Amino acid sequence: MKKEQVDTPTCQASINAVRDSLYVLNGKWKILVIIALSEGPRRFKEIERSIEGITPKVLSKELRELELNEFVERKVYDSIPVKVTYELTPHSDSLREIIHSLVVWGQQHRKYILKKRKQAQTERSIQE
Amino acid sequence: MKKEQVDTPTCQASINAVRDSLYVLNGKWKILVIIALSEGPRRFKEIERSIEGITPKVLSKELRELELNEFVERKVYDSIPVKVTYELTPHSDSLREIIHSLVVWGQQHRKYILKKRKQAQTERSIQE
Repeated sequence: MKKEQVDTPTCQASINAVRDSLYVLNGKWKILVIIALSEGPRRFKEIERSIEGITPKVLSKELRELELNEFVERKVYDSIPVKVTYELTPHSDSLREIIHSLVVWGQQHRKYILKKRKQAQTERSIQE
Repeated sequence: MKKEQVDTPTCQASINAVRDSLYVLNGKWKILVIIALSEGPRRFKEIERSIEGITPKVLSKELRELELNEFVERKVYDSIPVKVTYELTPHSDSLREIIHSLVVWGQQHRKYILKKRKQAQTERSIQE
């Protein structure tokens, strides 16, 4: 059995590092919230509207966790009525590369799927 | 209310693209499985062993989904006993940048947290 344990430290180190990343960015909403805030401060309702399918309860939880991890700052303005906005912190900049690679991959993946679907259709029409 | 709807197409396009990526890579295990296979074909038990905390049931489900999305190929060797391995497909190469950025960020984040913890300890010892 011993020869099966061939994991090098690099592979294991990568697994541990990605585990750390995914632990902080857990779930499918955090990155979407960060993108929604990428063009400046937003109110709760504005963020909610730009992320289809998110419920106020979930958004509220995600924002709290993003605040705890110092990616988002909640600002309360002493106006009438009180205005509350959320904005990205400088620390959130560190996520830029992850987000960029997810955006690029998502776009590529959509093209890949569409191309494959088209190929399948062409093959079907040749067979008919 | 109208002025609140300031989302530009770019921001919305990014949200949609990341949503596509996260839909395919959903959950916390898929990327870890891909890393575990990054150094060559592995048997089920070997993958299970390199990812702490994963159950056979979950790993089996993740591998099936990775196969469906063409990231992983399952090979059955006609030997006695039958040998089954899993390996990455060329399509999985497209995930390289996402994985790299998650590894780098995870390592940076760990350093960041350790530094902050150290600072907090120093401040506490000055106060005492």
